[in-house]
Amino acid sequence: MANPLKARLQEGKIALNAWSLLPSTYTAEFMVQAGWDSITFDMQHGLHDYTSAVACIQACQGHPATPLVRVPWAEPGILGKVLDAGAWGVIIPMINTVDEAQALVKACYYPPLGMRSNGPVRAAAYGVASPYQTIANDEVLILPQIETREAVANAEAILDVEGISGIYVGPSDLGLSYELPPVLDREEPEMLEIYRDLLKLTKDRGKVAGIQNMTPAYGARMAEIGFQLITIASDGVFVGRASREAVAATRKLVGDRKI
Amino acid sequence: MANPLKARLQEGKIALNAWSLLPSTYTAEFMVQAGWDSITFDMQHGLHDYTSAVACIQACQGHPATPLVRVPWAEPGILGKVLDAGAWGVIIPMINTVDEAQALVKACYYPPLGMRSNGPVRAAAYGVASPYQTIANDEVLILPQIETREAVANAEAILDVEGISGIYVGPSDLGLSYELPPVLDREEPEMLEIYRDLLKLTKDRGKVAGIQNMTPAYGARMAEIGFQLITIASDGVFVGRASREAVAATRKLVGDRKI
Amino acid sequence: MANPLKARLQEGKIALNAWSLLPSTYTAEFMVQAGWDSITFDMQHGLHDYTSAVACIQACQGHPATPLVRVPWAEPGILGKVLDAGAWGVIIPMINTVDEAQALVKACYYPPLGMRSNGPVRAAAYGVASPYQTIANDEVLILPQIETREAVANAEAILDVEGISGIYVGPSDLGLSYELPPVLDREEPEMLEIYRDLLKLTKDRGKVAGIQNMTPAYGARMAEIGFQLITIASDGVFVGRASREAVAATRKLVGDRKI
Amino acid sequence: MANPLKARLQEGKIALNAWSLLPSTYTAEFMVQAGWDSITFDMQHGLHDYTSAVACIQACQGHPATPLVRVPWAEPGILGKVLDAGAWGVIIPMINTVDEAQALVKACYYPPLGMRSNGPVRAAAYGVASPYQTIANDEVLILPQIETREAVANAEAILDVEGISGIYVGPSDLGLSYELPPVLDREEPEMLEIYRDLLKLTKDRGKVAGIQNMTPAYGARMAEIGFQLITIASDGVFVGRASREAVAATRKLVGDRKI
Amino acid sequence: MANPLKARLQEGKIALNAWSLLPSTYTAEFMVQAGWDSITFDMQHGLHDYTSAVACIQACQGHPATPLVRVPWAEPGILGKVLDAGAWGVIIPMINTVDEAQALVKACYYPPLGMRSNGPVRAAAYGVASPYQTIANDEVLILPQIETREAVANAEAILDVEGISGIYVGPSDLGLSYELPPVLDREEPEMLEIYRDLLKLTKDRGKVAGIQNMTPAYGARMAEIGFQLITIASDGVFVGRASREAVAATRKLVGDRKI
Amino acid sequence: MANPLKARLQEGKIALNAWSLLPSTYTAEFMVQAGWDSITFDMQHGLHDYTSAVACIQACQGHPATPLVRVPWAEPGILGKVLDAGAWGVIIPMINTVDEAQALVKACYYPPLGMRSNGPVRAAAYGVASPYQTIANDEVLILPQIETREAVANAEAILDVEGISGIYVGPSDLGLSYELPPVLDREEPEMLEIYRDLLKLTKDRGKVAGIQNMTPAYGARMAEIGFQLITIASDGVFVGRASREAVAATRKLVGDRKI
Repeated sequence: MANPLKARLQEGKIALNAWSLLPSTYTAEFMVQAGWDSITFDMQHGLHDYTSAVACIQACQGHPATPLVRVPWAEPGILGKVLDAGAWGVIIPMINTVDEAQALVKACYYPPLGMRSNGPVRAAAYGVASPYQTIANDEVLILPQIETREAVANAEAILDVEGISGIYVGPSDLGLSYELPPVLDREEPEMLEIYRDLLKLTKDRGKVAGIQNMTPAYGARMAEIGFQLITIASDGVFVGRASREAVAATRKLVGDRKI
Repeated sequence: MANPLKARLQEGKIALNAWSLLPSTYTAEFMVQAGWDSITFDMQHGLHDYTSAVACIQACQGHPATPLVRVPWAEPGILGKVLDAGAWGVIIPMINTVDEAQALVKACYYPPLGMRSNGPVRAAAYGVASPYQTIANDEVLILPQIETREAVANAEAILDVEGISGIYVGPSDLGLSYELPPVLDREEPEMLEIYRDLLKLTKDRGKVAGIQNMTPAYGARMAEIGFQLITIASDGVFVGRASREAVAATRKLVGDRKI
Repeated sequence: MANPLKARLQEGKIALNAWSLLPSTYTAEFMVQAGWDSITFDMQHGLHDYTSAVACIQACQGHPATPLVRVPWAEPGILGKVLDAGAWGVIIPMINTVDEAQALVKACYYPPLGMRSNGPVRAAAYGVASPYQTIANDEVLILPQIETREAVANAEAILDVEGISGIYVGPSDLGLSYELPPVLDREEPEMLEIYRDLLKLTKDRGKVAGIQNMTPAYGARMAEIGFQLITIASDGVFVGRASREAVAATRKLVGDRKI
Repeated sequence: MANPLKARLQEGKIALNAWSLLPSTYTAEFMVQAGWDSITFDMQHGLHDYTSAVACIQACQGHPATPLVRVPWAEPGILGKVLDAGAWGVIIPMINTVDEAQALVKACYYPPLGMRSNGPVRAAAYGVASPYQTIANDEVLILPQIETREAVANAEAILDVEGISGIYVGPSDLGLSYELPPVLDREEPEMLEIYRDLLKLTKDRGKVAGIQNMTPAYGARMAEIGFQLITIASDGVFVGRASREAVAATRKLVGDRKI
Repeated sequence: MANPLKARLQEGKIALNAWSLLPSTYTAEFMVQAGWDSITFDMQHGLHDYTSAVACIQACQGHPATPLVRVPWAEPGILGKVLDAGAWGVIIPMINTVDEAQALVKACYYPPLGMRSNGPVRAAAYGVASPYQTIANDEVLILPQIETREAVANAEAILDVEGISGIYVGPSDLGLSYELPPVLDREEPEMLEIYRDLLKLTKDRGKVAGIQNMTPAYGARMAEIGFQLITIASDGVFVGRASREAVAATRKLVGDRKI
Repeated sequence: MANPLKARLQEGKIALNAWSLLPSTYTAEFMVQAGWDSITFDMQHGLHDYTSAVACIQACQGHPATPLVRVPWAEPGILGKVLDAGAWGVIIPMINTVDEAQALVKACYYPPLGMRSNGPVRAAAYGVASPYQTIANDEVLILPQIETREAVANAEAILDVEGISGIYVGPSDLGLSYELPPVLDREEPEMLEIYRDLLKLTKDRGKVAGIQNMTPAYGARMAEIGFQLITIASDGVFVGRASREAVAATRKLVGDRKI
């Protein structure tokens, strides 16, 4: 299908998702050369705006990673814009209710399922034989974030909304909502229990579950329990951590040496 | 003094230099938070142009790393522009002769030493009590790259040019010039011999020697033999390597698992 | 009046509207030199964001085409921003109800008609003798798009809202809404019937009707039946089509020739 | 505290606020060198978008002025983004009701006070020893604009909403709302009476009142009656006025002289 | 080979070259979808600078057209930068002498043929199994422009310089040099004679000849007489001409009609 | 004529020239609304690069001020680019010899006077009935800066070079060259003597003399002694000075007041 990430997910395979905070086509290129199955340009907590997100989608066009966008908020204008620009999926923060999920579907799908406005300026131009508009409703991934108590309570009903492709768990916000510290890679048993409940809901419906992680080890554990779309860290984490490690290692070796 | 890197070098201390290939103020910020003594925005092989280099110098203003620029070529226009923008030092590729070194001095120093044109638009605006123009000639670091056979042959004379602050070794070009592969962190005895010869020249004159390295271990060895300005890898290397490692580690743990 | 497009429309003349998808001041300049009466910078399906739209309005300042903006969505923040930036009219997608039309008026007009916030940063600075704020309510064009069944049903009531200057028909979305393919230059009799009904409503009220077209021939037919603001294709269509034609024509002439 | 402006305000001191209309890191630098206590990047009537506002926050990082942002509208997506980018306060236009004030608090504060989503990409990276997330709720300034009759009527209730740090008066919109011309530095006794009423409300609650002014003289009078956050003119006003004065003065001196 | 354009040229096939004046990744995408064999980003007379040229090379990465750059001038700094950025060929204006041709080779080839400095930041990262540095000297196309009387006189010697891949004729400058008007698609017999002489020189050496044309018909004639790299018009010409034609056609059909 | 500044100068009138350091189309617009006869975008000591200079020329298109550019250095590539972009004049730093002046003429004029390459992409597109190429040699202003002892010594010969339109005095560099502080608005009798000598040379040849000044008063004095193109301060000076004055005035009025 036109969306390789969706094809992979439908085969039941695990997909590794790169996370781009940095509004730079060059970091995007460095990232997508690493073999990720998809890359998400984060317009919410990342430093992306619409223009940088589109530029990055362009810059990654020749690479196999499928481009996704996390929008800043569930607002119809930006949802339409990033899909028109060629994102094959969107992650949407803070979807807590069925009403919000239905509004998402309305914004992201062409009639009759939704009310997405026609005009896929970049999306229609590339790589697919059939007209984009006839396949878009089958190809795009719409992944609301489950990241509050309220969203957990409503998760089943949200997942039952036609057009919702699955869920994406935001561990730090979910933690805050339960009065826990805002970290990824959570170990609290009650949180892991929530993850398992959510995974049962997605599995029963043949839908996707994704999650944000900090480390390969934790991400792999999440794949083991049923998450399929596994994000590891981000470009910002990579450059910051590697930079600090290089300084520390060199300073240690050099010591107080003077020339 | 106004240039903390120069102060550190004059105390005989080793300085760790970050290398910025990526024309992004955000990667620059991530880099400078890591504790480097300086950061070089590379307009030659990096993806920087003038505008990104200045924006990065601005973005790093509140951090302790001293901003340097590697210019694309020894051209008076760009040398003046990056100094005016607030770089406290420049690294200049492919300086092979005394004439080229003298032209550098002419471009980078105010009269009477050189012919730099007056107009330090950003450089004059910050952080120093005395007017910039009265201190600039004492503060800026002018580091020609020694990276060809011809430059090695002329190194002593180049270093004798008043205003040349030292040298910066480009190991991959230097290797190419000796028909060796274009790598950093060289181990060929004849190359290490050249390094030692160059270090003797700089030491005898109380001038600085810098070198581009790939790893902390090699960089520390170079500090041990007398290099003082030690660059380790680059932001691009960091993000690319960490990204590949994350994918590899996660894929290995996940294996062929399907959900 | 300060808005030449509105003056032209009030004289009953047909106005030709250029359509800008491409966020480039250079394509904008090439477009406005061609003699259009207005140019719309499309932030919905086009690749414009706010910054590119303003830059294009600036770049076209010395040309006779009146600048309009299609906003991504009927959101008060962006409506105010593009008017403040100097757009003399806005086209707003997916206005389906009287409530939505009234919210539009509230966002786009100064008190007492609306609640537009004062601060016309670029708009107030140019070309009009009287203060912008005293004329803006008389000069700006507010054109909601009629592009769904629901909007057609509510068109009369929408047009009766004070401050709504007319309508702009989106043929492809309107088609989708009636389960027809998403094309411009429609020929279905039931759609042409809808157009005629809408034109009767606008004519009766002395308001404007505009429509998006692909070809001069179809656009001229629309002018003949009563549409007054006639858009033909877009900058993206022009560059893409001319490029493909040049390749095809040259390849045909050259054939399999080798040198 | 991490927010020097808030610290100053809590000490009861007057704070002078620079106003940035121009989306340029260079004008921002020129402004912050002048000694303001804070600088507001105006995304509503100014020419800023998100990307320019963040770039300006970066560029001012090394200077003492605390960065604030006026958002284009009270929309949760952009409120989160500018706080994540490092703004220590937000000014929000057209807050007229308690519901709107409560929605603001929900968007701007972490649980349990609000529902701000976690991910302070730049904000968490600088200058504070303790994790940003543990201090943010105590440090950020949330200043709704009181600029309509309705807002004046609801001002007491708005100020009673927990998390609302105070108010920011928009004199020109407030005037429009009372059918007065849209100017700053108002002299109508009924308006000054409104100001005094508002100041009594803020003073009684130990909250902040700010106001937009055109001249030092008027701004100082406002400080005298109790406003604490005093904005004077803007970068655009400064460059425009000084430019006109230079032309006028020179033309007058030169007269009709020819060479 | 890694450079598909060079492969095509070596097979003796005609190659159609798109010409990009507009510094926009979006016009670049529209262009490369049209089936050109290569696309040249023009930094001399086009509106490109380094940053836009690299962004366009990125944006075209997934398309078959090989990216070339025309540099503004034969200056080593920019020659190195565009090759490092991933251009597989450069067109260089105003090469009139053997010395200038030799300097070109020095700047564009790695040792031992030239002195290009090592650091192919983007060029090395994509699509080739072997390291870029080992193939670059075999893959890049170096095409000096022959566009003055002097260059015509020296053409044979220029073509004899090792590393010069062929020539690119600039018809309008060549005309100016012979006191003819600065047009493309020349018909003066003496100019066509010059073209034939140049083509004999390139053919005898198995080198490439390219030429700038305005129309498919003329371009095809040039292919017939032996030019192999055939440029037709430009993106700017396409958008400007199509825009004027649309206005003219619609105005003619609409006439003086009023609604 | 097509160049209003040149027309004014030929009438013997004084022309006031705005100086743009800031690479912002918005400051450029604020500046040109003030009534200057020309505006110079400074790529040498200003923060402009090519892209910002062109954008500013575009943004000022609808205003009467004639656009000029000061290039960073006398390099043929950038001279051609800014003229092609629509600058009607160039100011060139550090022209000290007749050879340098002749190289300038070669770069800036079409044959037969020079060797400027044809392709005036923006310059040819606007506002002149006759083709740009036939008038450019008569319209462009080529103003080398006289700002060293050597240049003063060679001024007569430089002015005798055909195509040199006059001179532009850089007082701070000229001062540095005579071991004086680098200031504008000089009062040293020997410097004023030099100015008078230069003015005699330009007057005798009917050529233009321009000069950089800080204040209207000094600029008017320079007009009185024969300078015709009078620059006053810059956008950066305006915004910085007005900002500092506003802070100082308000602080003084407010004193230590607390609320």
